[in-house]
Amino acid sequence: MRVDGRKCNQIRPVKITRNYTKYAEGSVLIENGDTKVICTASIEDKVPPFLKGRGEGWITCEYNMIPRATQVRKARDINRGRIDGRTMEIQRIIGRALRSVVDLRAIGEKTIWVDCDVIQADGGTRTASISGAFVALVDAVNKLHKQNPFTIYPIRDFVSAVSVGIVNDTRMLDLCYLEDSRAKVDMNVVMTDSGEFVEIQGTGEQNPFTREDLKELLALAEKGIKSMISAQKDSLKMDSLWIGTGGE
Amino acid sequence: MRVDGRKCNQIRPVKITRNYTKYAEGSVLIENGDTKVICTASIEDKVPPFLKGRGEGWITCEYNMIPRATQVRKARDINRGRIDGRTMEIQRIIGRALRSVVDLRAIGEKTIWVDCDVIQADGGTRTASISGAFVALVDAVNKLHKQNPFTIYPIRDFVSAVSVGIVNDTRMLDLCYLEDSRAKVDMNVVMTDSGEFVEIQGTGEQNPFTREDLKELLALAEKGIKSMISAQKDSLKMDSLWIGTGGE
Amino acid sequence: MRVDGRKCNQIRPVKITRNYTKYAEGSVLIENGDTKVICTASIEDKVPPFLKGRGEGWITCEYNMIPRATQVRKARDINRGRIDGRTMEIQRIIGRALRSVVDLRAIGEKTIWVDCDVIQADGGTRTASISGAFVALVDAVNKLHKQNPFTIYPIRDFVSAVSVGIVNDTRMLDLCYLEDSRAKVDMNVVMTDSGEFVEIQGTGEQNPFTREDLKELLALAEKGIKSMISAQKDSLKMDSLWIGTGGE
Amino acid sequence: MRVDGRKCNQIRPVKITRNYTKYAEGSVLIENGDTKVICTASIEDKVPPFLKGRGEGWITCEYNMIPRATQVRKARDINRGRIDGRTMEIQRIIGRALRSVVDLRAIGEKTIWVDCDVIQADGGTRTASISGAFVALVDAVNKLHKQNPFTIYPIRDFVSAVSVGIVNDTRMLDLCYLEDSRAKVDMNVVMTDSGEFVEIQGTGEQNPFTREDLKELLALAEKGIKSMISAQKDSLKMDSLWIGTGGE
Amino acid sequence: MRVDGRKCNQIRPVKITRNYTKYAEGSVLIENGDTKVICTASIEDKVPPFLKGRGEGWITCEYNMIPRATQVRKARDINRGRIDGRTMEIQRIIGRALRSVVDLRAIGEKTIWVDCDVIQADGGTRTASISGAFVALVDAVNKLHKQNPFTIYPIRDFVSAVSVGIVNDTRMLDLCYLEDSRAKVDMNVVMTDSGEFVEIQGTGEQNPFTREDLKELLALAEKGIKSMISAQKDSLKMDSLWIGTGGE
Amino acid sequence: MRVDGRKCNQIRPVKITRNYTKYAEGSVLIENGDTKVICTASIEDKVPPFLKGRGEGWITCEYNMIPRATQVRKARDINRGRIDGRTMEIQRIIGRALRSVVDLRAIGEKTIWVDCDVIQADGGTRTASISGAFVALVDAVNKLHKQNPFTIYPIRDFVSAVSVGIVNDTRMLDLCYLEDSRAKVDMNVVMTDSGEFVEIQGTGEQNPFTREDLKELLALAEKGIKSMISAQKDSLKMDSLWIGTGGE
Repeated sequence: MRVDGRKCNQIRPVKITRNYTKYAEGSVLIENGDTKVICTASIEDKVPPFLKGRGEGWITCEYNMIPRATQVRKARDINRGRIDGRTMEIQRIIGRALRSVVDLRAIGEKTIWVDCDVIQADGGTRTASISGAFVALVDAVNKLHKQNPFTIYPIRDFVSAVSVGIVNDTRMLDLCYLEDSRAKVDMNVVMTDSGEFVEIQGTGEQNPFTREDLKELLALAEKGIKSMISAQKDSLKMDSLWIGTGGE
Repeated sequence: MRVDGRKCNQIRPVKITRNYTKYAEGSVLIENGDTKVICTASIEDKVPPFLKGRGEGWITCEYNMIPRATQVRKARDINRGRIDGRTMEIQRIIGRALRSVVDLRAIGEKTIWVDCDVIQADGGTRTASISGAFVALVDAVNKLHKQNPFTIYPIRDFVSAVSVGIVNDTRMLDLCYLEDSRAKVDMNVVMTDSGEFVEIQGTGEQNPFTREDLKELLALAEKGIKSMISAQKDSLKMDSLWIGTGGE
Repeated sequence: MRVDGRKCNQIRPVKITRNYTKYAEGSVLIENGDTKVICTASIEDKVPPFLKGRGEGWITCEYNMIPRATQVRKARDINRGRIDGRTMEIQRIIGRALRSVVDLRAIGEKTIWVDCDVIQADGGTRTASISGAFVALVDAVNKLHKQNPFTIYPIRDFVSAVSVGIVNDTRMLDLCYLEDSRAKVDMNVVMTDSGEFVEIQGTGEQNPFTREDLKELLALAEKGIKSMISAQKDSLKMDSLWIGTGGE
Repeated sequence: MRVDGRKCNQIRPVKITRNYTKYAEGSVLIENGDTKVICTASIEDKVPPFLKGRGEGWITCEYNMIPRATQVRKARDINRGRIDGRTMEIQRIIGRALRSVVDLRAIGEKTIWVDCDVIQADGGTRTASISGAFVALVDAVNKLHKQNPFTIYPIRDFVSAVSVGIVNDTRMLDLCYLEDSRAKVDMNVVMTDSGEFVEIQGTGEQNPFTREDLKELLALAEKGIKSMISAQKDSLKMDSLWIGTGGE
Repeated sequence: MRVDGRKCNQIRPVKITRNYTKYAEGSVLIENGDTKVICTASIEDKVPPFLKGRGEGWITCEYNMIPRATQVRKARDINRGRIDGRTMEIQRIIGRALRSVVDLRAIGEKTIWVDCDVIQADGGTRTASISGAFVALVDAVNKLHKQNPFTIYPIRDFVSAVSVGIVNDTRMLDLCYLEDSRAKVDMNVVMTDSGEFVEIQGTGEQNPFTREDLKELLALAEKGIKSMISAQKDSLKMDSLWIGTGGE
Repeated sequence: MRVDGRKCNQIRPVKITRNYTKYAEGSVLIENGDTKVICTASIEDKVPPFLKGRGEGWITCEYNMIPRATQVRKARDINRGRIDGRTMEIQRIIGRALRSVVDLRAIGEKTIWVDCDVIQADGGTRTASISGAFVALVDAVNKLHKQNPFTIYPIRDFVSAVSVGIVNDTRMLDLCYLEDSRAKVDMNVVMTDSGEFVEIQGTGEQNPFTREDLKELLALAEKGIKSMISAQKDSLKMDSLWIGTGGE
């Protein structure tokens, strides 16, 4: 039994609220257990200099926590003078996850800014961010699509993420903070609805892990991803992206 | 008639949700019309170096907006490399407002960190921050008080804030963003429940204003402050602070 | 009686030296008692990006103190890594004060940089900066006007500032540092020659103040402003701006 | 056939030069094909504040490239004002890799600073850094051990890293820059001599990958790791760490 | 004949005003032609960490220009984000010059902060800073000496600086800005009253110079230094430092 | 006798390895005793904004040390938040030295970035950087020249640098770190093959020095420069630059 009564292969309750704030083209509050993240997608009609004139779009992601999202208050980046390595790593993984299912040529010369602001952190903020940001991204893309339909609908597949790990010699799905802080092996998996991996990041800093561990953890992750994508579909009232414009 | 149908002397609906996030000693979501701010109060068992050994506490305030709290996405401070002047000004006024009603000696050598994170901005974010932060502060102080009662209860009075201004030659209470952006005179007023001023900041950058304008704007502000303090009292289920421990 | 023998409604001696340094288009040393500020106005033939192509000018202000302008040496901004909140606040108030009396369209696409560098600080540096900067601004504008007369003379009115406050329960005009550091209420007032308010910033951080206090402090301020504007006029040898080119 | 004539399951030539510079406790030049990294290990007799008094040591890693290590000159971090996300990510992975095989309690309250400075970059700089840094670390630890033998020898196992990836639909080991820049899937694997994983970081940003891909890539990685560890052992003239002091 | 009518071996008029501002222990305005620098010396009762407990004092120097000290306004360091190389170089040379004539052990564990703030720059600001800062330093040291006489008077000799250079193939003393900007060779010389060199910095970036040039330039410099030290002595009303306490 | 057995007028062994890394247009490892510096010259097809459209080129230099180039590990610039004054000074002197022998008009609108990265520091890193950077610069210029011959060959003369100083009352050439750290007078001299000075920087912070000292130190420097230029010529297999294209 886990600290919150879940089974080892069970994810925490997921709640996705769309149109959470009113200005962003896509705005989602995702709650994964006690982890809560506001994900917005904002569209800008230009691309960064390195892409200018190539007819492609770009997706850039930023991640942050409000200072008291955590048990101990964490100073703001601007007061510490730099973004820490963990935040950098998370921003990069969110960006790669979203770009992996988007046809950037189909978007044209636009930048989609994805902001993930954690308001309460109880483990798994990076995976919740990916899962929530995907829904905000779909809403933003659909808003564009309604105004001016894309020739090729730019989102190719659903994408979602979960964490898995080994805690007290037990392999577990979707670790909460208490579990995460004791985990010997910690792995984040990003996967598409068609069952392919976008990203695997597994670390056994204190205790290296075996090929068998890896296999079992990936099986758990796959199960979690399915639940998470199912929550995304319910929220978007879309069963599949292939139909095209979908949505509201 | 105003853009949102209000009368000139009417504030927007106010909703204060206490215990909004789970880790902070005080955590409030204040909604003032479409302006929404998460205010947390966090207690730290030490004071900044300049106060060490003097037996006094300190209250320090930080204010921020998530990037898409506004109509146009605003880059994060850390990416622009500095806190802008407007944010600095707001942080300082929130701090002064809260400290004006707190007996810092009664608190002892503790720092209370107040964080105001705007998740949706529709004008009046600094005044909403003050009004919401006060409630978070009371909750945090009461948490301390229950664990270990203060000899002197450190909060001396309620404090709240509203904006007033002159828009299209009309004096108005509690400006929303559309009004604020067209205001010729813009004034923020911080006041206590006993009817005294803590802060008056009035600016007529484009159009200087007369003594008569000042008098009428202050009268409007006083009316708004009364409504705001009434919302604070309802939320805290406390009619007065003097009884002492009050609270939940 | 006050620490320096003045009456409560009396400002400190004011001395304004024009053409204090040789390169700036306007360059003034203002001495207000022991407070001494070098104010320069520099003209640049372009505007910041957000104003480009709109045919308007801009006035931007920077304020600083040399490290030993104060009793205790203060580290330079660059060594502390940031401009502090107080400096930011002051820069913004100086800018608003000057822009309030200038027709930015009449100036055309130019930026006027106003620099206020305090070389000795004895209270009231922000108000002295405003009063001195206005004179430097007039000199710079007149220099442009002589080279190439403006269709509309861009300065609409004189503007000046003073501080008032409550010290030992007495309301006083133009506080020196010793008074300022003990003041329970502290207010800065910016006013035009025609008697209208540009800015009121009043704070009673430790002791909120009443409506009666406010009324009396504003009356004192008005008296001080009159003296300060009179000193500006003497220095500029201009009785009024309306005549137009005035000056040397 | 690959661009440099290697077989798909072959790593580039590895050359490890110990005592490359004269001051550091451990100093190694590792050459992996045309990738060249100077790895030094420096010992400091204190730990960071968060570990003080706990009797444990710490290993911290920094990674950098000289500006013209790459085809196009890259501006120095200090001139761009920040460490970029890629560098942060690499520093963190090197640190985790080394700490995974070190008993930090056995080291006592010391910090080992590991610096990896790339002087020529032809792909795989992060994996070469890990492999080279491990040798520098062993030298530094052995230097301490000779002066004052540890009760428990603090290094528990060899650790090494390689990259694998899918290029033109072919799975390949130890990608050079040309291959890396065209890879659809890119994976870095850190593994111990006993065959356990310390870290797996696999990304298919453009093309998600299957479970079969993952299995085959890990098999390639394992082969590469064996060769790399063999090079480490030759260089250190140690067949095993268990004997204890080994070395020179 | 030079642009300002001087002879080639003549320095510009020097005026040294002591007690220029009221808070600093030593405060001097030095005017060397149109170059004007405020030099203050501030005493702090501690030394930087690297000197703690060694019974020695320290002298640290900072140099800055107000933005419009020059013909074209120069942005403040804090707005450009860094101190530029020229400023760094100047700060270091001022520090070395002053420390060369001070017995830091005699001062005890104190830091003397020397600030040179240029309010008008017409060439030779670094040499004027050294010459003026020395006088401020003597005043600060004498203030300490009067309160509590030093066993060994800590200032061993007068020190002063001048620039020399080759302009239009003519060797000249004490270059003004117009000359300096056209100089092919530019040299700053710091020398003591006893005729020894503290620092020679000569650069012929565009045109290397000969041994003969060097000899003649040093002779000119020596002449200039004598005049400058004579101005220091007049200002301090001290003919020699050896008598000890000297001064007012 | 000196610490390393050299005579006072003898430089340390010099070894110059060209084409040390593979991407830069010029890439040199210079070893001067135990001081080792990688010098690269990189060509960029544009100039900084202040030179645009003037038909001239530019040479800009950066200098850095890897953290453990020194006996005690030195934190990286980015972690200390700024480039220190010593580094700034060195970068500027390298730039002036190289520009002094280059005809920037002959180069056309190109920037040559010269990077000097010290991998082992045993005194004289700035002078070794100049001497090595010159060789890298010649290689880079010759690469351009072969692709597209210059009308005027842009390098006018060889340039080299050495340090001299007074240690234990003895004048010495080419100080190693141990000597440098005890030197009472420390001087860096940059000179051309035709025997003219480009830069003289002499400091006697602790002990001012006489005209006689200066004369003798310059004579030593001249001798050292001759040896250094001879090493440059051997390495480049060029006896003279005047022939033009020279080189490989």
